[in-house]
Amino acid sequence: MEIFVLRLSHRLPRDERISTHVCLVARAFGANSVVYSGQHDSGLEESVKKICASWGGQVEGSAMPFDISYEKNALKFMRECKASGYSIIHLTMYGLPLPEKLNEIKNSKKLLIVVGSEQVPGEVYELADFNISVTNQPHSEVAALAITLDRIVNGRELTKEHSWSFGSRIKIEPCAKGKKFRKS
Amino acid sequence: MEIFVLRLSHRLPRDERISTHVCLVARAFGANSVVYSGQHDSGLEESVKKICASWGGQVEGSAMPFDISYEKNALKFMRECKASGYSIIHLTMYGLPLPEKLNEIKNSKKLLIVVGSEQVPGEVYELADFNISVTNQPHSEVAALAITLDRIVNGRELTKEHSWSFGSRIKIEPCAKGKKFRKS
Repeated sequence: MEIFVLRLSHRLPRDERISTHVCLVARAFGANSVVYSGQHDSGLEESVKKICASWGGQVEGSAMPFDISYEKNALKFMRECKASGYSIIHLTMYGLPLPEKLNEIKNSKKLLIVVGSEQVPGEVYELADFNISVTNQPHSEVAALAITLDRIVNGRELTKEHSWSFGSRIKIEPCAKGKKFRKS
Repeated sequence: MEIFVLRLSHRLPRDERISTHVCLVARAFGANSVVYSGQHDSGLEESVKKICASWGGQVEGSAMPFDISYEKNALKFMRECKASGYSIIHLTMYGLPLPEKLNEIKNSKKLLIVVGSEQVPGEVYELADFNISVTNQPHSEVAALAITLDRIVNGRELTKEHSWSFGSRIKIEPCAKGKKFRKS
């Protein structure tokens, strides 16, 4: 399955760290790529590229390494994705509970998962094939994305094997106390 | 089960939003209370209290509403928790994979889940009963906390019933498009 994440309306400096966390969760939890709209931010792009350089950018089952790109017009991008066969999942506290729609979502071959910032335009709700809630409480787009990806990949991201598949020379050897590495 | 979350070394202004997301995830995913160390931040405390005022602060099975408090000395606080019977879980990308220790963790009656900022002192690893990884990749303490709580409460946080249990007058009625509320 191919999974893109779209981070809507990135604002500087307000969203610097939250958007970085969104991107790193996308990568660590098995998405293929992240796209963001709002303000262009070369610092955000650098942060993601730096993590890929240190920790690997390879994505299981994908020909392309994990990457980040900017789209000025998020709605146009969503419409184009839809036209080319992506199912669009919009994460919102107002949507249907994730477990209710998970099987349908997992049947899709290509997914675009959209996470918003504070004001999401009504058209996003309309364009989405699934408006999905990860709890009906206010919390965090970082957490909502993590839980959604975790359910889609069946918890595979939690295994050492998944973490070791990113093609980095440095691999963490999980341990009960302290920090252990392996270099290849 | 009683669950406390400890957010280590809050820094201003850098961690303002990440720490807020940590607190909101703690609340939405079923923790009883959040404690933070580092710089005192009345803005962070206000944000959490405001969410509780609007969306409810009641925690299922708990006599006390969800709350936030400050601890100057995090290590002392951890030692006190340990002495009074809490199992301490420290979330770190170097720890053992969550699924390996989940059953042991769920057998505890009282949990303190510790999430760090960039440099976590070695003593935290020593004091922890469980050093646990949510992936062995760098991503986000917000996501790590969400996945850990999700597994501990068996996904209960994703149900409408859980979201409706916070005692707020406004309840979200999950829907396929748009936003629906119910007022009681």
